[in-house]
Amino acid sequence: MAALLRRSKNLFKQWNNHVDISLGPCRSMASKVQVGFIGLGNMGKPMAKNLLNNGYPLIATDIFPESCKELQGLGAQILDSPAEVAENVDRIITMLPSSPNVIDVYTGPNGILRKVRKGSLLIDSSTIDPSVSKEMAAAAEKMGAVFMDAPVSGGVGAASSGKLTFMVGGAKEEFAAAKELLSCMGSNVVYCGQVGTGQSAKICNNMLLAIGMIGTAETMNLGIRLGLDPKLLAKILNMSSGRCWSSDTYNPVPGVMEGVPSANNYQGGFGTTLMAKDLGLAQNTASNTKTPIPLGSLAHQIYRMMCARGYASKDFSSVFQFLREEESGQ
Amino acid sequence: MAALLRRSKNLFKQWNNHVDISLGPCRSMASKVQVGFIGLGNMGKPMAKNLLNNGYPLIATDIFPESCKELQGLGAQILDSPAEVAENVDRIITMLPSSPNVIDVYTGPNGILRKVRKGSLLIDSSTIDPSVSKEMAAAAEKMGAVFMDAPVSGGVGAASSGKLTFMVGGAKEEFAAAKELLSCMGSNVVYCGQVGTGQSAKICNNMLLAIGMIGTAETMNLGIRLGLDPKLLAKILNMSSGRCWSSDTYNPVPGVMEGVPSANNYQGGFGTTLMAKDLGLAQNTASNTKTPIPLGSLAHQIYRMMCARGYASKDFSSVFQFLREEESGQ
Amino acid sequence: MAALLRRSKNLFKQWNNHVDISLGPCRSMASKVQVGFIGLGNMGKPMAKNLLNNGYPLIATDIFPESCKELQGLGAQILDSPAEVAENVDRIITMLPSSPNVIDVYTGPNGILRKVRKGSLLIDSSTIDPSVSKEMAAAAEKMGAVFMDAPVSGGVGAASSGKLTFMVGGAKEEFAAAKELLSCMGSNVVYCGQVGTGQSAKICNNMLLAIGMIGTAETMNLGIRLGLDPKLLAKILNMSSGRCWSSDTYNPVPGVMEGVPSANNYQGGFGTTLMAKDLGLAQNTASNTKTPIPLGSLAHQIYRMMCARGYASKDFSSVFQFLREEESGQ
Amino acid sequence: MAALLRRSKNLFKQWNNHVDISLGPCRSMASKVQVGFIGLGNMGKPMAKNLLNNGYPLIATDIFPESCKELQGLGAQILDSPAEVAENVDRIITMLPSSPNVIDVYTGPNGILRKVRKGSLLIDSSTIDPSVSKEMAAAAEKMGAVFMDAPVSGGVGAASSGKLTFMVGGAKEEFAAAKELLSCMGSNVVYCGQVGTGQSAKICNNMLLAIGMIGTAETMNLGIRLGLDPKLLAKILNMSSGRCWSSDTYNPVPGVMEGVPSANNYQGGFGTTLMAKDLGLAQNTASNTKTPIPLGSLAHQIYRMMCARGYASKDFSSVFQFLREEESGQ
Repeated sequence: MAALLRRSKNLFKQWNNHVDISLGPCRSMASKVQVGFIGLGNMGKPMAKNLLNNGYPLIATDIFPESCKELQGLGAQILDSPAEVAENVDRIITMLPSSPNVIDVYTGPNGILRKVRKGSLLIDSSTIDPSVSKEMAAAAEKMGAVFMDAPVSGGVGAASSGKLTFMVGGAKEEFAAAKELLSCMGSNVVYCGQVGTGQSAKICNNMLLAIGMIGTAETMNLGIRLGLDPKLLAKILNMSSGRCWSSDTYNPVPGVMEGVPSANNYQGGFGTTLMAKDLGLAQNTASNTKTPIPLGSLAHQIYRMMCARGYASKDFSSVFQFLREEESGQ
Repeated sequence: MAALLRRSKNLFKQWNNHVDISLGPCRSMASKVQVGFIGLGNMGKPMAKNLLNNGYPLIATDIFPESCKELQGLGAQILDSPAEVAENVDRIITMLPSSPNVIDVYTGPNGILRKVRKGSLLIDSSTIDPSVSKEMAAAAEKMGAVFMDAPVSGGVGAASSGKLTFMVGGAKEEFAAAKELLSCMGSNVVYCGQVGTGQSAKICNNMLLAIGMIGTAETMNLGIRLGLDPKLLAKILNMSSGRCWSSDTYNPVPGVMEGVPSANNYQGGFGTTLMAKDLGLAQNTASNTKTPIPLGSLAHQIYRMMCARGYASKDFSSVFQFLREEESGQ
Repeated sequence: MAALLRRSKNLFKQWNNHVDISLGPCRSMASKVQVGFIGLGNMGKPMAKNLLNNGYPLIATDIFPESCKELQGLGAQILDSPAEVAENVDRIITMLPSSPNVIDVYTGPNGILRKVRKGSLLIDSSTIDPSVSKEMAAAAEKMGAVFMDAPVSGGVGAASSGKLTFMVGGAKEEFAAAKELLSCMGSNVVYCGQVGTGQSAKICNNMLLAIGMIGTAETMNLGIRLGLDPKLLAKILNMSSGRCWSSDTYNPVPGVMEGVPSANNYQGGFGTTLMAKDLGLAQNTASNTKTPIPLGSLAHQIYRMMCARGYASKDFSSVFQFLREEESGQ
Repeated sequence: MAALLRRSKNLFKQWNNHVDISLGPCRSMASKVQVGFIGLGNMGKPMAKNLLNNGYPLIATDIFPESCKELQGLGAQILDSPAEVAENVDRIITMLPSSPNVIDVYTGPNGILRKVRKGSLLIDSSTIDPSVSKEMAAAAEKMGAVFMDAPVSGGVGAASSGKLTFMVGGAKEEFAAAKELLSCMGSNVVYCGQVGTGQSAKICNNMLLAIGMIGTAETMNLGIRLGLDPKLLAKILNMSSGRCWSSDTYNPVPGVMEGVPSANNYQGGFGTTLMAKDLGLAQNTASNTKTPIPLGSLAHQIYRMMCARGYASKDFSSVFQFLREEESGQ
């Protein structure tokens, strides 16, 4: 029956697309099917709001009751556990901090898979180990459900404005249905391949990002000590082969750019501890696949040292500050 | 008198600019002052040709007689030593492999400074240690001449097509005169600050380039092992925060891009041994200024290990091949 | 009843110790209780032989039938699965390649815990992730059995001669019983603390060993290039603060010592791929505990690169060869 | 005539050795030749005192007048410059902070070589770049003098008690004469080979020391986090293949050993900034000889980061503290 529901829903979507194409994939005056949402943290809450704003009735849950209240005020129905959510919908999005949480929310005693409807589409936007994504997919398949991994790039700001990028892994024939929902929360929804490849793409990007950021911080610091003006050096790098996102979009040196964490004492942005977590995932997948990642490993260790030295909650571009000589007297 | 010559030359240039502005800074039907050129290697020879093509009479020398013949055939006058060149011109460009060569060509027994004319402008486009550039500038100043460092970015192709980027350090009031010549050989001529800052900018750029390249190679290799399609992964990185010159312009994975060394078995391009040399300069300047460069250091060591393992003459993007699992049977 | 058996056995042991003390802890003319042994590979087979030689009747199994035959010829009883072994004895030793094998042998469908007797003592001498040891201990406890981790240091030679070192984690009150068996196979049996600490001690030792070995290889190579005689340099290091096991006992430079793998083209010894595996475990435990291990991480990556470049089966001291300049012509 | 003096002195020494062998190489009731000593810092002053105590009349100088007074009180003659010292003796020992000081003291306008007597023996105990030692040796040879490098291992304590180790490079036929003096200040005097090899041996030892120390700190920190008792872990490492000088003689973990800097809040010992300097020398020699030193490089960078973060004057074993998690509240 769930499969039937899904089929009718898809027909419905086609009709929507037909009459309402100018409003984009998420807009429709017609009523929409209920969606479950589990994990209402800093990222999950604005994502859930965007689903509500796009007309999707929401059934949500979170271990922190206070996180649920705000969504309830906006019209979401709140239930007590993932299992109860799973009983009531056939599309669920999860957004959780780490692998153990995902394992618990899917396979724990009150987990989704205890009560999942056959034919349900389960989309996990957490950033976790791809091997856990594969395990969850296998467990879901046994229950007749479909699991996809769809981690995001972009922070709280992008989550609020619906401008996230989703990297999606899983059965290709389910991608259209996943994209319909994800498009309400993001501006880019990229299909990456089989289950786990969304996580893999995310992890790869963040590893290269970390390397580029530390490299930029080292380079800018060296150049400044050699007598170069930091703005001029950034300009030269950005017109040359040293150019990277960290040099041209998110420069870690205070005074070089505006509107980035380095212009605000490294407040906001993407915390060093989160980067260290993602690099831990990269290291794990590399160890498991016996892939050498010398710079990625060292980047992991540097962010780990920073966490040990008081930088855990600063933006990851604060590596510039970490490498720089301390002021006298310290 | 040399100063007088220079002054009259400048007036002459203004007149040229006035009547001939549409032809750009290097074009003029009027005759131009002689320029000295020392170092006719892979880079120096096409640079010298571009000066000839722009109407500058050339007096050149090189330790390899065969390198001189081709230039002689194009109309350059060949002399036996840097000192003899210096006796005959008041603008000299040098393009040499490394610091010891520069020290010898400037301060050796047959070096430029033995016979340099007062007021001469000496432009060194070699990539060397900035502290050597400063020493040369001090030695030139004692003889009444002006030394500027102007290393290039861009390889043999850019040298041939006159599209190099010059990063120039030295007295600001001499920059216009230097730019006049350098514009004949490059499309970007950037003033970086006092003597040595051209080298510093070059070294900084290449260090970040090396880090970005190894990082890209590690990331692409990891992603491929995790089941991602290399072209798709490159596309995702390039629209995300992992983006860098090595991922979007010079991707090291065969099959991802055309017209780059990875598409041609890592032939051509920028050799691993040259990158190792530049990273050695970066390491030296960092050691001397007590600047931590953890990723830059490790990048240096990786390129050094590659040189020891047979990659010395391959393009530096062959680090992808170095990190990748060998074929079975090996 | 198993507890009763164990108690009577302990009394028996005391009696043995009393009358037979000059023969050491493993020697006794009295008959001994049967011991189970699972995993008859390069290490497990000589270990099992030493138990036989010390008078312990053995019940053994291995997935490779040919590995079992030799033991059978020496008097061991061979059964088909770990579960069957567990049905018949109340002391079992396991020696397996990696974490997944241990999980399978203990908790798989034909695993030990399917048929384990209450009160059994299960000793795992595999080198695996300490968190897996903890999981196995918890699973064993549920079945009324006791699990201890007891990884070894020392290679095939030490296994054959009964000179292994065992690092043991688990309930302290069971250590004496474990030591009785382990003493037949090793000359050092060290109690490290709660379950998992045996693995932790092993992993820590091997991480420091890898760092010391690569460090020694780099240092010897640098010294040789600087004109020092390798034997003299080793002598100087060994009387100074650079001294380490890799410099004074297992020097990686051919010609410096005899009887080590470097004297035999890096044949035998401890394979690079095994070291890479142990460093992967170190990295995992460090990531999980958020511990920075910058040199340990880089050592891991270097051994990983060596595996990718054809050094997988050479002794881990071949890192000297890996770092050294290749012969001309290559 | 200086050569004659040296020859007669050598005869004299032989006679001493003959009649006075039980007193060791430094003891003699006969009067001894004057020795010059330049550089009366933390190390130089106690070294000079030991020469005085062994009966050598001393002529000394230092740029800091206060450093000279104490020696003057003990009977040394103080002169104004290295040149003046060189005029008056034919054996000189120098003990200076770094390469530029050595260059200045030997080849500067008031340097030794301005006034050096023919046949003089010049022994430099500074730790500097071996290539500078070679330059000094070449410059000395032009003046008819002999230069040897003889850097020390052992700190201020060993300097005071005359227990330093000297690693000596230079002409073998001069080693006996050098050893006669050096034996008054050290318990080990090792001949390493041609000029510069003393420095090379010293640099190699300290690089391996730094690697071993950071490795020990990482390993101990990881083990402690995994639940191992630090003393027990140290004991296990020291009886296993992880053993090194830093684990068994100078353990960096407070509470493991007494009488080492880790037992005294990392006061005293060998400062992080000095280790960073020696690693800079190792890096320079490795870059110059194109030798890969991946762990040595990273060790250099870690000590450099520590200097930037306030550890410059702490003992180099404080890397344990640097890597360890900060206390809460920081």
